[in-house]
Amino acid sequence: MGTTQLESVPEPKYWHLKTVLTEALDSEFSVGEILPNERDLAARFGVARATLRQALEQLELEGRLQRRRGVGTTVAPPRVGVAVGTEQHAWPGAPGDAWQAVDCTTAAPPAAVAGALETGRDEPVHIVRRTRMTHGQSVAAELLYIPESSVPELSAIDAPAGPARVRALLRELQRMELEGQDSAVELGSARADDAKELDRLPGAPVLVVTTRYFAEGRTAALSVATYRADTCRLTFGDSGGVEIHQDPQRRAS
Amino acid sequence: MGTTQLESVPEPKYWHLKTVLTEALDSEFSVGEILPNERDLAARFGVARATLRQALEQLELEGRLQRRRGVGTTVAPPRVGVAVGTEQHAWPGAPGDAWQAVDCTTAAPPAAVAGALETGRDEPVHIVRRTRMTHGQSVAAELLYIPESSVPELSAIDAPAGPARVRALLRELQRMELEGQDSAVELGSARADDAKELDRLPGAPVLVVTTRYFAEGRTAALSVATYRADTCRLTFGDSGGVEIHQDPQRRAS
Repeated sequence: MGTTQLESVPEPKYWHLKTVLTEALDSEFSVGEILPNERDLAARFGVARATLRQALEQLELEGRLQRRRGVGTTVAPPRVGVAVGTEQHAWPGAPGDAWQAVDCTTAAPPAAVAGALETGRDEPVHIVRRTRMTHGQSVAAELLYIPESSVPELSAIDAPAGPARVRALLRELQRMELEGQDSAVELGSARADDAKELDRLPGAPVLVVTTRYFAEGRTAALSVATYRADTCRLTFGDSGGVEIHQDPQRRAS
Repeated sequence: MGTTQLESVPEPKYWHLKTVLTEALDSEFSVGEILPNERDLAARFGVARATLRQALEQLELEGRLQRRRGVGTTVAPPRVGVAVGTEQHAWPGAPGDAWQAVDCTTAAPPAAVAGALETGRDEPVHIVRRTRMTHGQSVAAELLYIPESSVPELSAIDAPAGPARVRALLRELQRMELEGQDSAVELGSARADDAKELDRLPGAPVLVVTTRYFAEGRTAALSVATYRADTCRLTFGDSGGVEIHQDPQRRAS
């Protein structure tokens, strides 16, 4: 990486360092390669450790670097495009659904979920935990909330536990006609349980996708899905699952 | 906030502290209120400053707190829903477009943009800078890349500079029939110019929405829009501009 000293510039030091590091990553490092340690990097670029760390954090936010426990800081592969919006609406569990059931419980939902579902605060809902794999890696964890009123026949069925129960639950849900759905994406931090499933530390930045499923004039189910923000870009629209390999912002800096 | 000492727990200390702070924010603080300084907070909860900072960073990621220069840390208002996907496709500048033109230049695009547009690396493209306001606040900054081949008649027009030139440019673009569009959302960090427009520090977390507009069998324009991640949740789907006021993840922790 040479021993380029940073000249004095009007922009914040860590920002200029980030630009210099980005160029070095493009030209001198390959995907998966481990970066030199912080002390060495700081010395080479003539910056304080704190400045270096700020620049590394930026590059992690942008998906250029990954910090992995017991490994160090490595050059990240390009983000994977994961389709979250489709032209056709579909119930969870419908053919082509990318999610795999993990387990399922029945409990009173968090207040905001009860609000969105318009159920009473103490009315229990079915909570299905699912996971989404891409290229053999877990990219997202989901909690799917289904009010008992959306699956009124379920209690009458001798539904077993675990994934089989989830299948019975989703089959009941699909009896209703899906009238529409909408989604919202926002930045969040990984809850401890999601973090474990996604192989991240609690609090790692995640993209939270909240989807409301509408049937019979109300919200019949609510999905809160947590995607790894470091490895995923969420795709919407016509090309569905087609990945956009280029990252225009990355090099637009 | 009382003087609750944190008991020893298996989860990381900052994570537990975050949960405690979240409850305090819900019950004792109102939107816009300034938090006590870090030294006082650390003392009250019996944690090190570093632990406190980690917890505050988490809450900032989740949109619960805002750190503002010269003000301190304040309790953030709920995030604003901003519609980024619509059922109907529309060219930039079409009626109902939420973006306002700022200026426009012609230059060789970044390599990744040239790749996505399938233009030559040195072929100049029109670069339109636009901004999006919601409730009087700038929530997003956009760079819209339009290859000269998408607006072949433009050079023949006596197009003036500034917003008027942008209008001429978008009018030319709209002559083509829009065949489709797709979008991708990912986490990024604010470039210096975007940060200034969004009233954030360079490197602040942003949601980057890349939209490709298809016409005549190719990508006729490319938009790279940078949304404030602290104040925005991006909405897609049937309800379009309808805001989802509830934040299910917030209270699901």
